Amino acid sequence: MIKKNINVGIIGLGHIGGRLYKEIISKKSDIELKTGSKVNIVAISAKNYKKKRSFKFKKNLFYKNPILISKNPKIDIVFELIGLSDGISKKIIETALKNKKHVITANKAVIAKHGDYLSLLAEKNNVNLEFEAAVGGGIPVLRTIKDGLSTNKISKVVGILNGTCNYILSEMETSKDSFKTVLKKAQSLGYAEPRDPKYDLNGLDSLAKVRILSAIAFNKKISRNKCLMDGIENIEIKDIEMASKLNFRIKLLGITEIINNKLFERVHPCLVKKNNYIANINGVMNAIILEGKPVGQTILQGEGAGPGPTSSALMSDLLSILRGNIKYSFGSPYKKRKKTSYYDNNKYSNSFYLRIDVKDKPGVMSTIAKNFAKYNISIKNLIQNPDKKNNKASIIIVTHKNIEKNYKNLILNLYKNKFVIKKPTFIRIE
Amino acid sequence: MIKKNINVGIIGLGHIGGRLYKEIISKKSDIELKTGSKVNIVAISAKNYKKKRSFKFKKNLFYKNPILISKNPKIDIVFELIGLSDGISKKIIETALKNKKHVITANKAVIAKHGDYLSLLAEKNNVNLEFEAAVGGGIPVLRTIKDGLSTNKISKVVGILNGTCNYILSEMETSKDSFKTVLKKAQSLGYAEPRDPKYDLNGLDSLAKVRILSAIAFNKKISRNKCLMDGIENIEIKDIEMASKLNFRIKLLGITEIINNKLFERVHPCLVKKNNYIANINGVMNAIILEGKPVGQTILQGEGAGPGPTSSALMSDLLSILRGNIKYSFGSPYKKRKKTSYYDNNKYSNSFYLRIDVKDKPGVMSTIAKNFAKYNISIKNLIQNPDKKNNKASIIIVTHKNIEKNYKNLILNLYKNKFVIKKPTFIRIE
Repeated sequence: MIKKNINVGIIGLGHIGGRLYKEIISKKSDIELKTGSKVNIVAISAKNYKKKRSFKFKKNLFYKNPILISKNPKIDIVFELIGLSDGISKKIIETALKNKKHVITANKAVIAKHGDYLSLLAEKNNVNLEFEAAVGGGIPVLRTIKDGLSTNKISKVVGILNGTCNYILSEMETSKDSFKTVLKKAQSLGYAEPRDPKYDLNGLDSLAKVRILSAIAFNKKISRNKCLMDGIENIEIKDIEMASKLNFRIKLLGITEIINNKLFERVHPCLVKKNNYIANINGVMNAIILEGKPVGQTILQGEGAGPGPTSSALMSDLLSILRGNIKYSFGSPYKKRKKTSYYDNNKYSNSFYLRIDVKDKPGVMSTIAKNFAKYNISIKNLIQNPDKKNNKASIIIVTHKNIEKNYKNLILNLYKNKFVIKKPTFIRIE
Repeated sequence: MIKKNINVGIIGLGHIGGRLYKEIISKKSDIELKTGSKVNIVAISAKNYKKKRSFKFKKNLFYKNPILISKNPKIDIVFELIGLSDGISKKIIETALKNKKHVITANKAVIAKHGDYLSLLAEKNNVNLEFEAAVGGGIPVLRTIKDGLSTNKISKVVGILNGTCNYILSEMETSKDSFKTVLKKAQSLGYAEPRDPKYDLNGLDSLAKVRILSAIAFNKKISRNKCLMDGIENIEIKDIEMASKLNFRIKLLGITEIINNKLFERVHPCLVKKNNYIANINGVMNAIILEGKPVGQTILQGEGAGPGPTSSALMSDLLSILRGNIKYSFGSPYKKRKKTSYYDNNKYSNSFYLRIDVKDKPGVMSTIAKNFAKYNISIKNLIQNPDKKNNKASIIIVTHKNIEKNYKNLILNLYKNKFVIKKPTFIRIE
């Protein structure tokens, strides 16, 4: 076992860092009981020393410069809870690992971007780099893949990985309020970033999580491919209502799978049948479905964000380090994780839901039909919702299967028509 | 890390042992990559040497006496896959631990009965005793509680823990076939024991799993209390249909929780609302819901039995041993796991569904009503289903909340009436 007295430093004292601080102090005897180690918080750092906090700390614990925590020879484990993809976050982790300290972070951005490099650094310095909190909040999904399902051959991972988007989509369905109204509600409830919620809404947050999941599930280097990525910003209440009439619900899914030995990662809104398991995950919940051999399908569900679930994941990383030997951040050694070859996104074949908002005038339908014919995309359902008052109409089309490339071209072409009011909204059907 | 070459012995070569044998051989390089250790199967044992098997083994690996595997100084890890609660299973584990070998088992019966003693033995001998496969099949629930949610304070665990019962109840609903017919179907599909499926059906299998979950989730010694335990043997197709009309589904649940610092464990059929998550787990699937602080609710779902999921769990135990230091079987040291005090089952308050099959004659209703009044149990719904041809009737009653003790007395008293054809069937409403 690891040594008896363990000194930790916490960098970043927002909602997460603050909760972790209190959690470590209140669970001290439980940690000792389970691991034999006494954990002491000996250093903290935050942008603003004077900010009002729900806990007190001794002034001499505070470091203005967090890098000094990463360099302090008395410290064994550093928590990085700032959350940038580069800059100071990367520097803190890098310096700590080079100084042979274990690092625990909740930072999906830095891991999705620099995880390969940082995990190699950890390996070289014989320390752990853990980031359970980066994916799925309180759901111990990374540990489940690395340990609980360790020798399974995983072929696909599907998840609701962003609580903000899932809350917005569920709440739009329930309240019938517009995207904008619900986004404001989400911000006031603390479910969405108050200033710039962009990275949650455009899919980038989910994509970072998907990249981490792929690397661990498929034993690969982190992918750098340009993925299929669409956010939920263009989804309107009428899409949700129309989906519901067609017996679907709209969910932002992150999906990663291996097709003919090639990696296919994507994040986009999906229409999923209402009776499907994942269609019934509502609000800020996250859920992850793993397909593995020999285990079969495994589902994990839990709270995806917030101080409680996140500190639960951080604590599990802490105990994992206190309990055992050095583990590989991504489950196997850097050198043995294969380089990735990518599935050609353009070849992906699927059914689409399209909403085309048009000026209501003669000839529109035939032009649209011609466009579809040009790309050999055949129509399964067509519903026209006229808005007589404004002399407009929404045309909803559900297609038979076709490839991404054709859809892309179709949408570009449709948009060239003057009668098309704005870029058509499309949602893939899972 | 543990030494480079690891010798293992497998005792029990049925469906599970056979699959594990093949799994270890086919995943050899994956195991080495992830742990740095080479695993060799150097000993096997089974009741019948000559039985036809789907794999070949070298004759000199076979031991007629499995105890010699537990004693063999060349062996590092022993798999016990016989599955008895005592006798040879216990002896194999005991001997292996005393001889400082790690033990991995899928045997819930021996762990629920002797887990405290055996885990202490493992601790004293500085080896691991792992049993992930004993609960939830392929779902890594024990590891999730011990590692992924390690410092959470868990207050309640609810699960569908027996695939056989869940298959029978789902299949009765879908096919409208009788309990007997569906049981036969389950047996022919390999979902139920062909000779004696009693332990699955009467709740004992689930109860063993509940006892293991309680010990790990609440950091307690394994309980020995007489629990509330009812099986599914008395559930008829008319109960399933009636439940459905009332918007419920019948599920056999295992539940363990802490009420006022006292442990309350139970296994019994429950009526659960159809839109409830757990009501929608069908077939042989297992699901477990954990309530914890700070993580919130966490749900795990997966295949609960069969060679694939079970060998996945056994392999995760193997890799856990190869990766790390000695871990506590129940998450914390024997001495620190508290003794359990028990919640008084009789005080448990709940609504009940009762089906009383009666001879259809005057005065029956008033007598039944009197019986209910005697125990202060008030009726919420009463439905009478007459069977005119046979001069019988089924009276279905849904009650308002009352305590177990009163129900027990009510049922005893009802059954004393000559017009009551058989012991009333009752199902608790969750």
